[in-house]
Amino acid sequence: MPFVAETRAGFVQRPVARMRAGVLERADDRIAEEVPVALVYNERPHVVMMATPCDLDDFALGFSLSEGIVANAPELDVAATRTLLEGIEIQLRVPAARAAALEQRKRNLTGRSGCGLCGAQALEDALRQPQPVADGPRIAAHALSRALAALQARQALAAATGATHAAGWAGVDGELVLLREDVGRHNALDKLLGALVRSGLDVRDGFAVVTSRASYEMVQKAATLGVGLLAAISAPTALAIQLAAQANLTLVGFARGDSHVAYAHAGRIIGMEDAGA
Amino acid sequence: MPFVAETRAGFVQRPVARMRAGVLERADDRIAEEVPVALVYNERPHVVMMATPCDLDDFALGFSLSEGIVANAPELDVAATRTLLEGIEIQLRVPAARAAALEQRKRNLTGRSGCGLCGAQALEDALRQPQPVADGPRIAAHALSRALAALQARQALAAATGATHAAGWAGVDGELVLLREDVGRHNALDKLLGALVRSGLDVRDGFAVVTSRASYEMVQKAATLGVGLLAAISAPTALAIQLAAQANLTLVGFARGDSHVAYAHAGRIIGMEDAGA
Repeated sequence: MPFVAETRAGFVQRPVARMRAGVLERADDRIAEEVPVALVYNERPHVVMMATPCDLDDFALGFSLSEGIVANAPELDVAATRTLLEGIEIQLRVPAARAAALEQRKRNLTGRSGCGLCGAQALEDALRQPQPVADGPRIAAHALSRALAALQARQALAAATGATHAAGWAGVDGELVLLREDVGRHNALDKLLGALVRSGLDVRDGFAVVTSRASYEMVQKAATLGVGLLAAISAPTALAIQLAAQANLTLVGFARGDSHVAYAHAGRIIGMEDAGA
Repeated sequence: MPFVAETRAGFVQRPVARMRAGVLERADDRIAEEVPVALVYNERPHVVMMATPCDLDDFALGFSLSEGIVANAPELDVAATRTLLEGIEIQLRVPAARAAALEQRKRNLTGRSGCGLCGAQALEDALRQPQPVADGPRIAAHALSRALAALQARQALAAATGATHAAGWAGVDGELVLLREDVGRHNALDKLLGALVRSGLDVRDGFAVVTSRASYEMVQKAATLGVGLLAAISAPTALAIQLAAQANLTLVGFARGDSHVAYAHAGRIIGMEDAGA
């Protein structure tokens, strides 16, 4: 599969004033777009995300899958995308049972006045544990380096604006085949996961790379889709490591040049089988 | 007011495996903590944020103010902070009218099945516009540089873990007087804003600096508290610039060394009065 940069513009031109060593200059800079995007399931609004308005079909699918709202792509129908004055509304159709489960989740967060356990329930819902991902594939260290280098070289929106994160998908050999960008790192990953599912690629035949840190929610999203290895340019959090360990996901951080750090299930990386992390 | 680093630990030690140029080594690294924190208002859970568990009283106050849940500090009482198995629950007391308004906001997001306008209403709520902030103070470019340098030098948690953002408060002369850190950039800013209000410092006598990009929500939070100038190390988004322009907030980005870019209301910066941005 050849690499195709899918990201449409996602930026605008704005006048700015730049001060460099006391010298003032005017310029038109490229600025990343950020727009409120409302995800509406079966005519009930679920959430408003601040996102870069490109690849929104990928985003809707990736978010719906990675948040466990639907179990597979055929369960989701993007019925309509409307650009309103205030932002973008994406109307989604899911099976009635999925919509009911989503409503129940919301009631867990918003209801139960005075039960004394409401906070605990809300916390528990936030820590939804994905199923452990399957073993394999084995990845060479140079494949990590190759994928990360391509990710950084090809993030067009970041190159234009300096304001966005990217998430990429690479084959086992490290060839980057998908890349998505967004002002939010979670959104970039959701767009990538949606694009991955739509591409028909097998999630067991590659790995994910991100330009950001690796938080709990990013490991949660990747593991929910069955991703075996997530490599981040920056650091993970302690909770992200804990979840990766539980979910059989290989978590890599500080992946830069020819070095990287493995935080969980290092054994998927060739040469790190006995590393102990 | 002398600078005092308030951040308690916020990190843990974890075993990692590091590969550098083909050489494998084991180490114990410092990893930033990330914990689900449930904010519960008048016994009703409102939201769960993934946050670094330090300075949580600042966080609770800053979030409550910057999200417009309360109008001033005396309206908020941190009744209890409980560490549970799943995370941390912060029980907050607010006036009954504030709790009712919060419930109404939630109903706007979750209710109204099939009205056809639900998405629009949810989007409108997300774009809550703060009142324009007051004019002044005037800030010298070297004060920006001074504050940013101090922010980067003093972010202890980031130095230990590489995983956290910082937000700082500087006097008009650029002296950094408050600094807060968190794995989330919005949380770091909320902690700072809470600390600022608790400190009794006048919001008109200084400015805010952040190690991250400047998104819409960060401008929204800063403007809601009356902050006149927000300087970010990285880029702003287009929507952040638009809100800053509307809210009379001076938005600065790419503030590094002796250079910076002004995106809105450059006139607060000495020497940029005629810059036009």
